[in-house]
Amino acid sequence: MAVDDSEQLTDAALRARYGEQDARWRGPWNDTIATMLAHRSVRRFAAGDVDDDTLSMLIAAAQSASTSSNLQSWSVVAVRDPARKRQLRALAADQAFIEAAPVVLVWLADFSRAQRIADDEGAPLAAAELVESTIVGVVDAALAAQNALIAAESLGLGGVYIGAMRNRPDEVAELLELPPRTFAVFGLALGHPDPADRADVKPRLPQAAVLHHERYDGSRVAEHLDVQERTLDAYNATQGRRVSWRQTVLRRLRDFANLSGREHLRAALRRRGLPSE
Amino acid sequence: MAVDDSEQLTDAALRARYGEQDARWRGPWNDTIATMLAHRSVRRFAAGDVDDDTLSMLIAAAQSASTSSNLQSWSVVAVRDPARKRQLRALAADQAFIEAAPVVLVWLADFSRAQRIADDEGAPLAAAELVESTIVGVVDAALAAQNALIAAESLGLGGVYIGAMRNRPDEVAELLELPPRTFAVFGLALGHPDPADRADVKPRLPQAAVLHHERYDGSRVAEHLDVQERTLDAYNATQGRRVSWRQTVLRRLRDFANLSGREHLRAALRRRGLPSE
Repeated sequence: MAVDDSEQLTDAALRARYGEQDARWRGPWNDTIATMLAHRSVRRFAAGDVDDDTLSMLIAAAQSASTSSNLQSWSVVAVRDPARKRQLRALAADQAFIEAAPVVLVWLADFSRAQRIADDEGAPLAAAELVESTIVGVVDAALAAQNALIAAESLGLGGVYIGAMRNRPDEVAELLELPPRTFAVFGLALGHPDPADRADVKPRLPQAAVLHHERYDGSRVAEHLDVQERTLDAYNATQGRRVSWRQTVLRRLRDFANLSGREHLRAALRRRGLPSE
Repeated sequence: MAVDDSEQLTDAALRARYGEQDARWRGPWNDTIATMLAHRSVRRFAAGDVDDDTLSMLIAAAQSASTSSNLQSWSVVAVRDPARKRQLRALAADQAFIEAAPVVLVWLADFSRAQRIADDEGAPLAAAELVESTIVGVVDAALAAQNALIAAESLGLGGVYIGAMRNRPDEVAELLELPPRTFAVFGLALGHPDPADRADVKPRLPQAAVLHHERYDGSRVAEHLDVQERTLDAYNATQGRRVSWRQTVLRRLRDFANLSGREHLRAALRRRGLPSE
């Protein structure tokens, strides 16, 4: 790739990600970084499966991610059966893309293998009761899933995470026959992007809002929030939407009205054998 | 890349990741997948900085990752100052690579911007008290960090996550001047890999242990645990180490003896303004 092409691609990618307002820089560029910068959530899928060999390679990428203390405290359930996808959709806020995607990956925090090792040795598994272990399992699952998604995107596939998989954790566990000491952290719908889908790269907060040097610097947060509001307004206008980012944040966090059951997650985690003590 | 080369590279990468025991498959292959499959933890660094333009590009990759409800509930503090790295090292199990790395990224779950929005509107932020929100912040931080690490590895850099950043959360928060409603989920030491470092690709559980189809299938777990024990034994032998994987798992989880303070994480999260209710 010629240097000029690379500069133009970099500029275009950064402009899409940060809007017009943010400063530009001359960072390094390659296909992997280009894939990441071009990420967008895909909720509309064209025809076409994700075949077993491709899925195996995505999971090999996932297993290649770091894992805390090499515990490998995650698993994933690949759901392709239409009836089961329909049931997952009903449990996860009735989002149509769950049924439309050729495969839905449900990512688990999984301490059931550790429990098996403890059982074999007649040992306790006291640390599995701690929020620390829940975080270990959640981080392990997220690192693995992100590798799978980036690998998928590098192959021209697309997808979207499904946080609503935490709306009704007991029923998700029953549907997927999850053993004790596992819970479904999130889903990931994957498939071939519908070329007619207009959803595009979504602008983020200015980099200075999230990247701090040596110590946290929140002195310019008001300005950063204003910039995010404006760049997202401009993006939403291209999508024929009017939504305030501030109001989205508030609607999600001000009370429990929009949590769809996730306010009960702590109790559900306890029932799943992953109490947050 | 000729097909034959690609097949050989795929085979070699899968053999390193799964040991000799696991089945092979003919999945798709490209530079991004090759980068991921080749991941290894780098704890020994050669001379050389991670310059500002490179860091900016890594963080652009991080910000391009998915984020729950577009909340962007994460931040990162880049620590390069030798004195501050030394202090971080002291707080994170005295691991020498923290001081040796040219840059340590400390990834935060960050609801402080949401708090600011709530303050501006005189609104509550009740959902920030829930373990659901802690999980949202942890997942957001992990997806972002993994993009940054893969981007770094695609440029020939290397690194290792630092879970010990959760050992003494209050002191880490004080050192980095973290505002309320933020906490340091993990660190990531980054730099140029020391070519003399022998640490290599670490074999993982057989893919059938973590990838389930339609429903969780734990029927072969005993066999999978045996395979992991053997493949990791073979790897450890190349490193001049003898460690049982089962014993590593048990040592970490059977009681609180090896948690270095993380058994108190729930109380620390409450003090950071992220209670796990």
